[in-house]
Amino acid sequence: MTNIETNGNLDHLTYNEAFELMREEVDKALSSSPSLIRKYTEHLKATRGKFIRAMSLLACAQKSDNLIHRDAVLFAAAIEIFHLATLVHDDVIDNAELRRGAVTLQKKFGRKTAVICGDYLFSVALKIASSVSDRKKYIDIELPDYISRICLGELNQHLENGNLDISVYKYLKIISGKTAALFEASFFAGAILSEDEDRTRREYMRLGRYIGMIFQLTDDCIDYEETEITAKKPVQSDFEQGVITLPLIYTFSSVEGFKQKAESSKISREELTSVVRSAGGISFTRKLAQKYYDKSIEILNRLKLTETKHAMLAEILDRAFYGVKKK
Amino acid sequence: MTNIETNGNLDHLTYNEAFELMREEVDKALSSSPSLIRKYTEHLKATRGKFIRAMSLLACAQKSDNLIHRDAVLFAAAIEIFHLATLVHDDVIDNAELRRGAVTLQKKFGRKTAVICGDYLFSVALKIASSVSDRKKYIDIELPDYISRICLGELNQHLENGNLDISVYKYLKIISGKTAALFEASFFAGAILSEDEDRTRREYMRLGRYIGMIFQLTDDCIDYEETEITAKKPVQSDFEQGVITLPLIYTFSSVEGFKQKAESSKISREELTSVVRSAGGISFTRKLAQKYYDKSIEILNRLKLTETKHAMLAEILDRAFYGVKKK
Repeated sequence: MTNIETNGNLDHLTYNEAFELMREEVDKALSSSPSLIRKYTEHLKATRGKFIRAMSLLACAQKSDNLIHRDAVLFAAAIEIFHLATLVHDDVIDNAELRRGAVTLQKKFGRKTAVICGDYLFSVALKIASSVSDRKKYIDIELPDYISRICLGELNQHLENGNLDISVYKYLKIISGKTAALFEASFFAGAILSEDEDRTRREYMRLGRYIGMIFQLTDDCIDYEETEITAKKPVQSDFEQGVITLPLIYTFSSVEGFKQKAESSKISREELTSVVRSAGGISFTRKLAQKYYDKSIEILNRLKLTETKHAMLAEILDRAFYGVKKK
Repeated sequence: MTNIETNGNLDHLTYNEAFELMREEVDKALSSSPSLIRKYTEHLKATRGKFIRAMSLLACAQKSDNLIHRDAVLFAAAIEIFHLATLVHDDVIDNAELRRGAVTLQKKFGRKTAVICGDYLFSVALKIASSVSDRKKYIDIELPDYISRICLGELNQHLENGNLDISVYKYLKIISGKTAALFEASFFAGAILSEDEDRTRREYMRLGRYIGMIFQLTDDCIDYEETEITAKKPVQSDFEQGVITLPLIYTFSSVEGFKQKAESSKISREELTSVVRSAGGISFTRKLAQKYYDKSIEILNRLKLTETKHAMLAEILDRAFYGVKKK
């Protein structure tokens, strides 16, 4: 059990209590896995993120008294572990060497181990989620649907890998399946614990999806804005990995002959970045993110939230929009 | 809906009705996946097996009137799809080219696609299982536990790959995690639909585990008994893929100098087979399978089964013991 102070209510927690418990749950899952696999899951601790999906879920799960049902801790931990599982398989698919500054599992222990570890983490996420006290809510979240949507997003991205002719529409569809679906799931799961009406829950879903889109579009921009050292990103840029993101898609469509150049010759990272910037690829992407931002603000104001909850969700929205690393 | 004749009872089906519906459900899942992924899932139809896990589940699900609750169809289809998912990832891990005579997904479309397709199939299996009418039973089956056991079995096998010093004990532990766990899950899920008492359900679990062990041990023998043409197996034998199975483990421990020979020099498949046979590796393995067989018969007789149900489960046991292809 945790050693943090409690508010004296066993079933309901403050946000800070819930967040700490979620972190402990994730750490426990990674440190206390069977000895056979512990070396690998321990390694993943280094690549844990900032828990923005868990934060979203917990923030959404706050009820009118700002307290959170204990089950939210398990759902939030499950979402983070599930996210980790998708990253492990992503790295196998992209053959990535670094993730958040740490060597990837597939690079360090081989891709076969990474495939199995990803599968294992999927099962851990399911196990944690299904251990909630209110099993009906576990069913309501429809995790399998989200998992299949995310797989299809991943497949879509893989199939379009290196395709310089990808359309803006197709690109948005891919990220809506990948990043946005997991944010949507987080917001939806939170809402299931705090809201009774279907209509309201769907508003949270939409908000989560928009915030996921913003999060990804901002990340795409960061790849063209930051240097290798500050980005804590793989040594290879998105483009070098064959991942064509929106700033570049826009640039290809507006700078004549540039696509052909990128296709045929080795183009330096510096040149690519400089053309994307001057062609307005970044500002185009930012503007699109702004549209999702405005829609998100509308939803935030439409939802009848407590002041605290409103402020927290607005903070998450801002982190997505301005970039987690920029704050 | 199906066009097979029904017994007029909407919720309860005869075994044959249930089996047909299960097959339709599996086919539907593979043929009606989103267009993006359909090419791959359609390809997998060729590598579907003989549905022995689904048959087990349906046979176990028979109640005292030999009828089966409709939910069993969904659980059985889910188990088969889940099994397919593990095969797809197994093939990535083993770098296998053929599976049941057909080109593997990873060979035909690349291992990245195969990783994603396996993930997708996991989610489909979960989706089908969670769509049962009695959601409590879905929870009771504890699918995530089985998934994690199977992953650990897979990891164990991968880590021991090529290790000629693997012990009999360790080997049995690996197959108990892999093949046996899925059979256990099938029997357990069936029992959840037909039996109310926990004690009885655990008997089914044990029976499933034993039958899974028998199934795997028999399969190991077949690898040394059959030729490439009759086995419908990958061109490579288990040994050539680095998989050390019980007949060989026994042979290493009883024929002096043979392990060193296998380690150091290129040994032909013929020589390996001939040494394993004459050293008694196959009969040792068969004898162990016989022990599990005897224990299974005991359980079968202890369970109070209808004549039909007893006969069906005995038939499945026999298929496991004599080899599915031998009948």
